[in-house]
Amino acid sequence: MRIVITGGAGFLASRLARKLLERGRLTDTRGEERELRSLVLLDVVAPADPISDSRVISVTGDLADPAVIKHAVARDTDTVFHLAAVVSGQAEADFDIGMRVNLDATRTLLERCRTLAAPPKFVFTSSLAVFGGPLPDPVPDDAPLTPQASYGTQKAIGELLVYDMTRKGFIDGRSLRLPTITVRPGKPNKAASSFASGIIREPLSGVDAQCPVAPTTRMWVQSPRTVIDNLIIGHEAPARAFAHTRSINVPGICVGVGEMVNALRAVAGDAVADRVKWNHDPAIDRIVATWAPNFAPKLGPALGMKSDSDFANIIRAYIADELHR
Amino acid sequence: MRIVITGGAGFLASRLARKLLERGRLTDTRGEERELRSLVLLDVVAPADPISDSRVISVTGDLADPAVIKHAVARDTDTVFHLAAVVSGQAEADFDIGMRVNLDATRTLLERCRTLAAPPKFVFTSSLAVFGGPLPDPVPDDAPLTPQASYGTQKAIGELLVYDMTRKGFIDGRSLRLPTITVRPGKPNKAASSFASGIIREPLSGVDAQCPVAPTTRMWVQSPRTVIDNLIIGHEAPARAFAHTRSINVPGICVGVGEMVNALRAVAGDAVADRVKWNHDPAIDRIVATWAPNFAPKLGPALGMKSDSDFANIIRAYIADELHR
Repeated sequence: MRIVITGGAGFLASRLARKLLERGRLTDTRGEERELRSLVLLDVVAPADPISDSRVISVTGDLADPAVIKHAVARDTDTVFHLAAVVSGQAEADFDIGMRVNLDATRTLLERCRTLAAPPKFVFTSSLAVFGGPLPDPVPDDAPLTPQASYGTQKAIGELLVYDMTRKGFIDGRSLRLPTITVRPGKPNKAASSFASGIIREPLSGVDAQCPVAPTTRMWVQSPRTVIDNLIIGHEAPARAFAHTRSINVPGICVGVGEMVNALRAVAGDAVADRVKWNHDPAIDRIVATWAPNFAPKLGPALGMKSDSDFANIIRAYIADELHR
Repeated sequence: MRIVITGGAGFLASRLARKLLERGRLTDTRGEERELRSLVLLDVVAPADPISDSRVISVTGDLADPAVIKHAVARDTDTVFHLAAVVSGQAEADFDIGMRVNLDATRTLLERCRTLAAPPKFVFTSSLAVFGGPLPDPVPDDAPLTPQASYGTQKAIGELLVYDMTRKGFIDGRSLRLPTITVRPGKPNKAASSFASGIIREPLSGVDAQCPVAPTTRMWVQSPRTVIDNLIIGHEAPARAFAHTRSINVPGICVGVGEMVNALRAVAGDAVADRVKWNHDPAIDRIVATWAPNFAPKLGPALGMKSDSDFANIIRAYIADELHR
C-alpha cells in the first residue's frame, strides 16, 4: 500500500506518519487490509525532524504545481491524507495565497487522483470553520455551511469537491471537520487558533503567553493524539457508512478559554498558569468569534470517532508526548 | 452605468437585457440610481436575435479566457449579471466542461471584478440544485448545501466565492437560487429540467413532447417574466438587507408534472395536452429526483421577490410573450 500525506513536514502529518508506520496496515478502497509499503511525505519544505524508516519518501515542492503532485502521487497510490493548508489567519490576511493553496492545490491533487490506477481513499482535513453565522448551540451535523472567513470558505469548497468527486467514482473521499487542535508543540503560527496551544505550551516552558480572546470564549478542541486516531478511523470507515455527504463533524470537547487556563493551574500550578497574560487582539477575536464552539456530532461517533475526556488530560498528554516528563 | 451580462446570447440574458434597456436606470453599489449607458452581452456565440439599441455591445469569446473577460468587463463596469453556465445534464455528463465553465469562468470573472475601479454589483444565478439529500419539506432558507450532482456542486461553490468576496469588499454580490424556469422558448437543451418547458412548448406548437419523469414528480418553478423581475429586485436590494449570507432562495410555486399537463389541458384543450407522451428516462429522473420541489423562502420575499400565481398563468404568459396570440 502506498500512502501520500500532504503538509508532510508539519507536526500533524509527522504524528500521523509515525502512527501509520507503527500500525503497518490500512484498509484500501476495496475493503482489503494491506501492508503499508511506502509513505510519501509531500511538503513545500523538508521535514525538520525526518523519520528514519525505509518506507518513508520525502518529496519537497510546491503543492499547487501539477508536476510536483504528479511526481509525489504515483499511479499506484492507494491513499492520500490531504493535510496541507494555509492556516486561518494567513488565509484571511492574504486572500490569494489562501485560494492558491487551500483551493487550487486541493483541486490539483483531486484531479491527479482521477488519473490513478484505481480511485484512492482521500482523507481531507476540513475544519469547523466551515460553519458561521447564526447557528444552533450545539451545532447539529446538518447545519448550513455559511463560513464567515476565507479559510472556512476554502475548506467548504474542498468538501464540496471531495463529495462530488466521490459521487462520480473518481475518489473515495472523507472530509473531517477537525476541532481546534491543542496542544500543538513548536512555535506559534498564523492560525487564529494558535493561542489555544500557546497559552498552555509557553507557560509550561517558562515563557509568558498572550491570550488574545476573553476567558469566556468557548472553543471546540481536541488533542493531537485523538485527532490522529480520528483521522485513521475516518480512513478506515467503509464507504457504505456514508450517505448523502462525506463530511464529518469530528467529536471534540467544548471548553472555555478561562477553563483551559484553570486546567493548566490544576495540572502545573499557579506560577505556570500566571504566565498567561490576557491581551485582547480584535483581529484574532473577530475570526475566533465566527467559529461555533459546541457541536452535537452523530456521524463521527457512529464511525467510531472519539473525543478527549477533559482539558486537564489534554494538557497531561502534551506533557507526556512532547515534554517527556 | 455600465452593465455586463454573461451568457448574453441566451434566452434569459436577452429577456433581461430588453427589460434593463426599457427600464433605463439601476441602483449602483453606493445606492445611487444611475442611467444605463452601456450594456455588454458576453457569450461564446453571437446572439441569434441581436437587440437593436445603441447602448448594446456584443462581445463573443470564451468565458474561461481571462483576456476575453478583461475586454468585456471594462474597468468602469458597475454591474455584472453572471448568467452563463453549462446546464445540469451536460455538467453531469461531462465533469470537466462543467468545472471549466461553472467554476473556473465564475472565478475568473470574480477575479476581474476585484480589479475594477470600484467593487461592482455581482448578480450570480445559482440554482435550487445546490440542495440535495434528505431535506425538510418545504425547504427553509437555512437548509444545508449537500448537492447531489455536479451542477449543484459548482453552483454551491460559486455562492461560497460570491459571499466571501463580498465579505472581503471585492464585490457586492447576490446569489439567486432560481427555480426551474418554464416555459422557455426555443429548442430543448441539455438541462435535466428541459422537459419542464418542452411538455408545454412542443404541444402548443403542434409537436409531441416526451416527458421523462412521472406525473407525480413535483418541481419548484417560475416563469421567465417573474425570474427577470426577481433578478432585477435581487440587483436593486441594498447591501444592508443581507446578513450572514448573500444566497437567496427565490420564491416559486411547487407544482406536480401531472398538474402542469392538466393546466395545459385547461388552457389549450385536450388535443394539445394529449401530445405529451410519458416516456421515463432514468438518467434525467435521477437528477431531477435530487432537487427539492418545495421551499419556504423568507429572505427572497422580504427583498420583494415574487412568485407566479399558478401554472395556468405561466402557460398564458408564454402564449402571450412568445407565441404572440
